[in-house]
Amino acid sequence: MSKIKHLSSLQNSLIKKVLLLKDKSRERKKAALFVVEGQRELELALKGGYIISTLFFEPSLSLEASLDKYNTVKEVISVSKEVYQKIAYRGTTEGIVALVESKNNTLENLKLKNKTPLILIAEAPEKPGNIGALLRTADAANLDAVLIANPKTDLYNPNIIRSSVGCVFTVPIAMANTSEIISFLNTKKIDIYCAALTASVNYTNVDYTKATAIAVGTEATGLTDTWLNASKKNIIIPMEGEIDSMNVSVSASILIFEAKRQRLTS
Amino acid sequence: MSKIKHLSSLQNSLIKKVLLLKDKSRERKKAALFVVEGQRELELALKGGYIISTLFFEPSLSLEASLDKYNTVKEVISVSKEVYQKIAYRGTTEGIVALVESKNNTLENLKLKNKTPLILIAEAPEKPGNIGALLRTADAANLDAVLIANPKTDLYNPNIIRSSVGCVFTVPIAMANTSEIISFLNTKKIDIYCAALTASVNYTNVDYTKATAIAVGTEATGLTDTWLNASKKNIIIPMEGEIDSMNVSVSASILIFEAKRQRLTS
Repeated sequence: MSKIKHLSSLQNSLIKKVLLLKDKSRERKKAALFVVEGQRELELALKGGYIISTLFFEPSLSLEASLDKYNTVKEVISVSKEVYQKIAYRGTTEGIVALVESKNNTLENLKLKNKTPLILIAEAPEKPGNIGALLRTADAANLDAVLIANPKTDLYNPNIIRSSVGCVFTVPIAMANTSEIISFLNTKKIDIYCAALTASVNYTNVDYTKATAIAVGTEATGLTDTWLNASKKNIIIPMEGEIDSMNVSVSASILIFEAKRQRLTS
Repeated sequence: MSKIKHLSSLQNSLIKKVLLLKDKSRERKKAALFVVEGQRELELALKGGYIISTLFFEPSLSLEASLDKYNTVKEVISVSKEVYQKIAYRGTTEGIVALVESKNNTLENLKLKNKTPLILIAEAPEKPGNIGALLRTADAANLDAVLIANPKTDLYNPNIIRSSVGCVFTVPIAMANTSEIISFLNTKKIDIYCAALTASVNYTNVDYTKATAIAVGTEATGLTDTWLNASKKNIIIPMEGEIDSMNVSVSASILIFEAKRQRLTS
């Protein structure tokens, strides 16, 4: 680990950069850096092969000795309580915040290990909390990939990191436009099943044991026609109540775990 | 419909009462009244047999003519824009807010229609958003009941109403302490399956086609021993990722829809 510097000025340019990177997607893209907070999240980032460029810690909350696992980090900076409270979201819980280098989440960089992968596709998801919940489910199900079609937000939005509890780092993810993803899936002979309210069969009546991609749209508008036209079959979770929509992360989880069940018992 | 009054003063005692009822659980209990906002939510409340005591509308947002469906309401009050913005959460979207009479959600008042009911139990759920999501799933699955054991929040918390998108009104709900609920279930010979990380079988290896109650705890601590001791079998959703917990509404939904699947195909 490099020599530890100390920072206590809110006016320091590096601290200003952290605040900007937390706030602005455009700045994150430009710098290819983003901000991660918390021990667990940073450990998952390292596990996911991410590179930490700068680590900030507040000595009264996070002892230098506990930073051993970050010995590959280029720059380690101890910060005053005042600075920490400014750059951290969760206040004083863990005393650790870092700048991390972005990955290039393209389809070209995506490696599918299994011959019969199980993939989740989310088209144009808007709410960071929903994306985080989808990634949490994807981690639990050990999905081969999550593909985000026509993304509306960058992956390193602090609310996605937080709501995914760090699963954004452990799940293989690619972002691309819809037509690129469809041709990627077609080339690899992966069947597409679209969650849709019309022309759909009960989701339990479909065989997910082959190479499978399950696509979900937004709660408000569902999937676009481009997806529905590329669908091998539309699937539906029968809803028997007074309202006709479920939370997107809930419905995606039901579909994914039905696929997992079939694969376990087949 | 009674003669329509008009209110434009923020100092009016009825407006102050609305603000207090939105804010304070204790006030809601004392008055046996709570606040509901939005057309859809109010329609579901009426469908669920709730009684609207006072309806507020803002004439430029919600025309008097559209209030026909509320013709049983005792008191209808048109309010100024200023008052509306004060009592409404969503600002100016729908122009309608109401005081609604609470129900007494006791086990004694709960009627189970089916001989082999499917019931969800949530022990001490804390986050209103999670409770709302559970109720949304319960509505979609047409569950016979949701039982909340040792509740930490009252059911008519505005965040529960909002996150359940009104399903708090359509789902049969009872709240009681854990031992009361367990003896209720035992008396009715309803099998209890507890979601738990230890001494558990894969959730797909259990038969949910008999009278079934599925119990889930909080994400942080899971179910208490009292529940685990009352469990016919503990069940687990196998998690294969880096983290070891799922969102409680997601895991409850996976369990419930597995039960639904078995009941459909059995």
